[in-house]
Amino acid sequence: MKWCRFKADGSESIFGIVEGDRVIAVEGSPFTRYERTARVYPLVAVKLDIPTVPSTFFCVGVNYADHVRRMAEKRGKQPEFPTQPDIGYRANNALIAHEENIVKPKDAGAEFQYEGELVAVFGKKCRNVTKENALDYVLGWTIGNDVSERGWQASDRTLWRAKNCDTFKPMGPWIETEADLDTMQTTIRINGAVTESFKTNNMIFDAPTYISLVSRYCTIMPGDVMWMGTDGVPANMAMGDTVEIDISGVGVLRNRVVAET
Amino acid sequence: MKWCRFKADGSESIFGIVEGDRVIAVEGSPFTRYERTARVYPLVAVKLDIPTVPSTFFCVGVNYADHVRRMAEKRGKQPEFPTQPDIGYRANNALIAHEENIVKPKDAGAEFQYEGELVAVFGKKCRNVTKENALDYVLGWTIGNDVSERGWQASDRTLWRAKNCDTFKPMGPWIETEADLDTMQTTIRINGAVTESFKTNNMIFDAPTYISLVSRYCTIMPGDVMWMGTDGVPANMAMGDTVEIDISGVGVLRNRVVAET
Repeated sequence: MKWCRFKADGSESIFGIVEGDRVIAVEGSPFTRYERTARVYPLVAVKLDIPTVPSTFFCVGVNYADHVRRMAEKRGKQPEFPTQPDIGYRANNALIAHEENIVKPKDAGAEFQYEGELVAVFGKKCRNVTKENALDYVLGWTIGNDVSERGWQASDRTLWRAKNCDTFKPMGPWIETEADLDTMQTTIRINGAVTESFKTNNMIFDAPTYISLVSRYCTIMPGDVMWMGTDGVPANMAMGDTVEIDISGVGVLRNRVVAET
Repeated sequence: MKWCRFKADGSESIFGIVEGDRVIAVEGSPFTRYERTARVYPLVAVKLDIPTVPSTFFCVGVNYADHVRRMAEKRGKQPEFPTQPDIGYRANNALIAHEENIVKPKDAGAEFQYEGELVAVFGKKCRNVTKENALDYVLGWTIGNDVSERGWQASDRTLWRAKNCDTFKPMGPWIETEADLDTMQTTIRINGAVTESFKTNNMIFDAPTYISLVSRYCTIMPGDVMWMGTDGVPANMAMGDTVEIDISGVGVLRNRVVAET
């Protein structure tokens, strides 16, 4: 089942269920309760919005061994692998939907890069859960692009500008509730050409490990998201580029890079 | 004018205006539009909630020279003063209201400390504003206690557990719209005894500087908050302690420390 949030008829964003090339509008939400309505739209005719607005936006910083190794090599440093699953955060102001534009700030540098990430969307309030039960609290999976400006990432004491400028966090296109983590492959394309491909679930600490540990200290709410990190060494995105994050079994998140005006 | 959010008659939290020892319920909110109603409650009879639920929770990490100097001395390190205003973030799951309990996790260490902070609450959507105009976007000021577990602050790669466990972010009691930054004094008391007192506006980078810079890259939304950092060297909080953050012209935020059960 695919959950989306969308605008049609100039309305506020509402939740919908994607079935093939149609969207069925629902009343309510997947996080509370809902009813299907008789309002059905062609998928191509609606404006997809971000599939959830999290109250807390969790994000795993470093979670793939090959990413750690190759990024360290690129920077001429020794790789430092995380020894424990320390969750981080991103900012809601940066979220944009599928097909919306990533706006590159005027003073951003050339190392302006994507990071293709699997995103867990929580369906139930989650506190003190075991690894074994962790995925019961996940409604489904969507896709995130953790856009990063590497110059700022090196110079700023926090990751605020490097990771959280407006439009730096594309998320969508929808939430897939029936995905199989072990068969997922993440493929990233710029203007149709593959620049990276990795096994999505090849994480240093997997989603159940993160969810269980975070929930030991923090309540995760329905609608919250946890971005799970990226693998490989991302490429630069140039003005006008279209970047696609494709996770098999989930969908394709597509955004174009434009200049700040 | 003092804006609060409160529960009365077992209702959902609504906005109210505090006048002396009474709360006048309003319809709407200070962030959109509102009307005073005829419903008036004694302040002592209502349950105050956090005065706003931010979409993005901005927090200044290090913003007072004396704090930098004395914390470095305590850790036997050289002080490192921030050279630019890099904003950080905190997590909504950690927010609690005035008079709610700070719950110390079972495995938290002895260095379990308050940080008394002035909090800007935004009233208007804010993007690309000058320092001169920055405060026009601030609805008013409230008080935050940036509770910190120093052992985790040293060991965790991010500040997630150190700063963002459930109940680690008391905020309130209300939003004061007419405060004068330059005359404010922050006083912190444990069980009534003063443990710290500092001039609130004695910041390395003041609120207009932060707001202007952040708004250059990030849209700050109505209801968002920016916590402005703390001064001095905080003391440990023991089980059963009552901690008060008193900012003159704003109010007193009071919370008790209890054990996780």
